[in-house]
Amino acid sequence: MSLLTVGTIAFDSIETPFGRAERVVGGAGVYIPLAASYFTDDLKIVSVVGGDFPPDEIDYMVSRGIDTEGLQVIEDGKTFTWHGKYKPNMTERETLDTQLNVLASFDPVLPESYKEVDYLMLGNMTPSLQMRVIDQLKKRPKLIALDTMNFWMDTAMDELKKVLQYVDVLTINDDEARQLSGKFSLVKAAASIHKMGPKYLVVKKGEHGALLFQNSNVFFAPALPLAEVFDPTGAGDTFAGGFIGYLASTEDLSFENMKRAVIYGSAMASFCVEKFSIARLKELNDDEITERMVNFVQLVNFDAKL
Amino acid sequence: MSLLTVGTIAFDSIETPFGRAERVVGGAGVYIPLAASYFTDDLKIVSVVGGDFPPDEIDYMVSRGIDTEGLQVIEDGKTFTWHGKYKPNMTERETLDTQLNVLASFDPVLPESYKEVDYLMLGNMTPSLQMRVIDQLKKRPKLIALDTMNFWMDTAMDELKKVLQYVDVLTINDDEARQLSGKFSLVKAAASIHKMGPKYLVVKKGEHGALLFQNSNVFFAPALPLAEVFDPTGAGDTFAGGFIGYLASTEDLSFENMKRAVIYGSAMASFCVEKFSIARLKELNDDEITERMVNFVQLVNFDAKL
Repeated sequence: MSLLTVGTIAFDSIETPFGRAERVVGGAGVYIPLAASYFTDDLKIVSVVGGDFPPDEIDYMVSRGIDTEGLQVIEDGKTFTWHGKYKPNMTERETLDTQLNVLASFDPVLPESYKEVDYLMLGNMTPSLQMRVIDQLKKRPKLIALDTMNFWMDTAMDELKKVLQYVDVLTINDDEARQLSGKFSLVKAAASIHKMGPKYLVVKKGEHGALLFQNSNVFFAPALPLAEVFDPTGAGDTFAGGFIGYLASTEDLSFENMKRAVIYGSAMASFCVEKFSIARLKELNDDEITERMVNFVQLVNFDAKL
Repeated sequence: MSLLTVGTIAFDSIETPFGRAERVVGGAGVYIPLAASYFTDDLKIVSVVGGDFPPDEIDYMVSRGIDTEGLQVIEDGKTFTWHGKYKPNMTERETLDTQLNVLASFDPVLPESYKEVDYLMLGNMTPSLQMRVIDQLKKRPKLIALDTMNFWMDTAMDELKKVLQYVDVLTINDDEARQLSGKFSLVKAAASIHKMGPKYLVVKKGEHGALLFQNSNVFFAPALPLAEVFDPTGAGDTFAGGFIGYLASTEDLSFENMKRAVIYGSAMASFCVEKFSIARLKELNDDEITERMVNFVQLVNFDAKL
């Protein structure tokens, strides 16, 4: 099944307590399809970069089965850059600098061959651009997933609520679920968000794992406790890529399969944080992913003896 | 198997976003044995209260199978009081007032019949008092569990490290595990803490669940997402009581059984937060506990199909 990702591509400059990286490749438009490429090979991307973006990196994406017809390269423009610094707890981070560059005038135009895609993953960006993508589709995908953040709740809540009506899966963190719904209890927040459109709510809690809600069904996926957490940047997008990539490859939207997808997403995210940028994702193989899935089974498996 | 709990008993005054309670019964010395009483009936307690402590509450503890010979009642003294206010996120809290009262001169004297106890749970208190309890034992218990907090790491680290040498299970939160070990990664923190004495480390993460470490074994127990979280006070102690109560009743210290104990602890904690003080624990029955264990199984159960 085809999977279209619409998301930003960036040069990230990152400072963590364990090191720093300068102008490394990042953004949802890279992490999501790359993570998904370990599950399915019918991948498409809509994004924008400047003339400063390395052709090698685009070639690499193509080598992973990612169709880049929808990737706009603005030769006389510069790629979006983000500079952030993590606090010692590695969960909070401070944005030191953002240069929108080519992103400022980004119009996510879908090539003709993208308009009947089966699965759609909308990375975090202006809700009106996410809506613009949906408006170009010729038929409704089997599944639309959307990632967003508190910034859009603060500045564009109406547009966000409009696009949410078309969305099947919403991925946000716990604070954002509370902000969007106005409810403290995540159980109540999920019920409230279901009414806005999304049938499924994935609450990403970083090192504390993720929760999947669908009506009265709840599933909890832990994050794997790791000896080395090097850089959390991109973990949420990598999670989303593993999640929707697994769904697109299995074509099964039952809650049981959604649970597996959440665990695959968590497994992919656990690799992402081990190195800067996409370094760990680039060197990954299927055996390592299976091995990590076994780790997840062991991590939560118990016999209640009831 | 006999289980001795040494812990403070308090009058708590609590403010949460959902309500307030004035001078309600609280403290590790109440929550721990009460939670454990749902698993085992050979319970003993060492603690101290003032003449203002309601005899009815002591009678209730006795009715739950708790031997109160070791409970010192200082007739002309006042019970320890704590006044705290939770922030809107319900995880951070501010202490508004503390009156040590009879706790200031507390000497945890063990009655003769307590000195050969099988299981020992040392609630959070001055490490030197925890050591004083261990010093009075005639034989080593099958298991010693200890709860502590950042305050003792800040003010009495040497005494804490001394008592830890005698401890099998340490229960602390994630920030405290990092502070005690000086390691950011909880995997590394656990390895470091094992070397201090405790063979098992339970990292309590409140609404994010709990982690159990034993050498290379790791187990994750989620917290149940609840529609109503009324008051988190006592949840950590209730967890500890369910955990060690289950172990004392099963007499099985395998990692597999420790996992079940962590889930039972989590189940008991999930009840605790539904009402102020011990109100929910008082009205609980075994069927409700079993039902909640089923909820935990459903919450994390998945078929990886590997």
